[in-house]
Amino acid sequence: MYYFDHAASSRIYPEVIDILNDRYKNSFGNPGAAHQYGQSLRKKIEELRLNFLHKYFKAEGDFILTTSATLSNNVAILAPLLHLTNPKDFEIIYFEGDHPSVVKPVQECGKKGYQLKSIVLNSHKEMAVEDVVDLVSEKTKLIVLTSVNNQSGQLYPVKEIALAARLKNPDLLIHLDASQSFSKIEEEYNFFDSVTVSSHKMGGPKSVAGLYVKSAKNYSPIFFGGGQQGGLFSGTEDVVLLEAFHLATELSFTKMGESFEKIKKMNQELQQILTDLDLGFEFPFKKTSPYILTFTSQAIPSDVFLRLCENKNIYLSSTAACSSRIKGFNATFKHLGLEDKWHKHVIRLSFSALTTQEEFLGLVEGLQSVIKENSFLFKKNKR
Amino acid sequence: MYYFDHAASSRIYPEVIDILNDRYKNSFGNPGAAHQYGQSLRKKIEELRLNFLHKYFKAEGDFILTTSATLSNNVAILAPLLHLTNPKDFEIIYFEGDHPSVVKPVQECGKKGYQLKSIVLNSHKEMAVEDVVDLVSEKTKLIVLTSVNNQSGQLYPVKEIALAARLKNPDLLIHLDASQSFSKIEEEYNFFDSVTVSSHKMGGPKSVAGLYVKSAKNYSPIFFGGGQQGGLFSGTEDVVLLEAFHLATELSFTKMGESFEKIKKMNQELQQILTDLDLGFEFPFKKTSPYILTFTSQAIPSDVFLRLCENKNIYLSSTAACSSRIKGFNATFKHLGLEDKWHKHVIRLSFSALTTQEEFLGLVEGLQSVIKENSFLFKKNKR
Repeated sequence: MYYFDHAASSRIYPEVIDILNDRYKNSFGNPGAAHQYGQSLRKKIEELRLNFLHKYFKAEGDFILTTSATLSNNVAILAPLLHLTNPKDFEIIYFEGDHPSVVKPVQECGKKGYQLKSIVLNSHKEMAVEDVVDLVSEKTKLIVLTSVNNQSGQLYPVKEIALAARLKNPDLLIHLDASQSFSKIEEEYNFFDSVTVSSHKMGGPKSVAGLYVKSAKNYSPIFFGGGQQGGLFSGTEDVVLLEAFHLATELSFTKMGESFEKIKKMNQELQQILTDLDLGFEFPFKKTSPYILTFTSQAIPSDVFLRLCENKNIYLSSTAACSSRIKGFNATFKHLGLEDKWHKHVIRLSFSALTTQEEFLGLVEGLQSVIKENSFLFKKNKR
Repeated sequence: MYYFDHAASSRIYPEVIDILNDRYKNSFGNPGAAHQYGQSLRKKIEELRLNFLHKYFKAEGDFILTTSATLSNNVAILAPLLHLTNPKDFEIIYFEGDHPSVVKPVQECGKKGYQLKSIVLNSHKEMAVEDVVDLVSEKTKLIVLTSVNNQSGQLYPVKEIALAARLKNPDLLIHLDASQSFSKIEEEYNFFDSVTVSSHKMGGPKSVAGLYVKSAKNYSPIFFGGGQQGGLFSGTEDVVLLEAFHLATELSFTKMGESFEKIKKMNQELQQILTDLDLGFEFPFKKTSPYILTFTSQAIPSDVFLRLCENKNIYLSSTAACSSRIKGFNATFKHLGLEDKWHKHVIRLSFSALTTQEEFLGLVEGLQSVIKENSFLFKKNKR
């Protein structure tokens, strides 16, 4: 199986699987319990929370353990706004080409009266710092950014935007969704007021994610219960999944540079191979994370291409998993700057730090034989 | 280790640990992905969802996969109310002695203008059907009930309340938090509009829970994203944890009657032993689930009692884990009908279907030696 859909959900590190096996056998109980056993779980949570803050975010503030990047983004966007009584006095700046878990909560705020301003990419399909800063006014309360777009793989200049936006309005909050970049790309998180990270996009299990918050003092909970995580994420903390997520983070950070170079090389090699075929494969996005390679197949639609790949045991995707049921015209593609005619021709191929050279060779061979066996299709339809 | 704090978080079934180990090794990917592999995960989710509905809830409607009972309760309480524009025209009936994950969201609705009506237990510390029904009016929108109170273990007459309340107002919604009863006590769920169930209270892993909803057509999401679970619980579905939760449910249901009788016998035996000691142990709550035995130790405060037990490797609790940091006066105890003077003297002992006779004997021996070794304390302070 040649799985290259890691941006949707990644394979788990073998070491993380080992720790899951061990902890499920040996660890249970509630970290909220007053007894020593509960307290030992509490201590473990605090230790890992501080590790996340100091080792990986390298920032002061809180690390909130959540159960999904979607919920992390919702807390980060909704919690600082809920206590405001006059929504129409506040603006939110966001990019509609981002993941629905940031786009949708912002649009909900729009329905509640907040003024929304959309970032528009320039003609090179790039997010220009000055274009974002132009949107900032004294009414701007929140800017929602994503470091690596989940669909295009594009790296946005989020640090530069944060610096310039704060110069214009020092009171605004900036949230960063780092689901596709955390532990993969070198980043500085202390430029942001909140940062979402996801375990299952980087070799950890699902149902666990995190939210870094610089200062939660003006945050109101978006749901209510036992008051865990400073009241911002009530519910019994899952020490097992936290440990697994923490280990996946540690493993990824330790080899971040090495993995980056390995994947960059594979990415470039694959681009070269597809280009050399001269069958109309194009790469519409520049300045991307090497972990995501999005291309268009001029000759045949992506659903046909993906089906042919599946026959060779190669698993790719066209659009984000949660948008995969949308057929044809795709609003995200439009905001990313893709002309309508390409929307049914997009392929997203995504790598993991665990991707081996052997898997990569399997992918290349598989793609080559798909194309060879169907060369009449590719040639006939080439525009 | 004699762990009797299963109402806080339970030990996981060995068979469930096995399936977790196997699935973490062999299953990954995103059930939202369009490729065959993603679709096979989707199919598995749909199969298990239907099993939950038809085999365990025995009711028509939706089963929503969530990540905690807290979030299930929040969705059930907030989602049907969010679209209402005139909160003060609607009443919510609830019981303040219930778990914070139902009490707090209801109280948040109160802050937004909904009229709240509190159920008060009668002088026998019982929830009388007629007392609840007296609260129902034509303005009642929602009644929030719990089948087994997490603190007292009391079984409330929720089916009778549901029937009588609907006779008075057929349009109201009734939510049931079944976190402490699902798969332990025979119940009929089709009397309710929504039901919360929790995996880690019944031998499954944490970070997975469920919400049965009879009809979600007037529910608005409380957070926003990729639109999974009919939009009511966005975020990548975790098939591994769902399978584990499902297996824990299957194992629990298969032996429900047998486990119930086993635990009931242990519970009664323990009550007898503690009573026979004549050291002032009392059982303030009648009509309880056998899985929870709450008693008061007249002679010494619960924190001392729990510490002495810990020295014998026995783990009990006094109050719910999420309330364990509240010292002294406890609002939940008050609503449960306990006089203030008892609040620092409550011990909660909770069983699991997995509790063995051997563990039970260890518990009994341990408790007896705690009491023997500290008999001066128990006798001196007996009122």
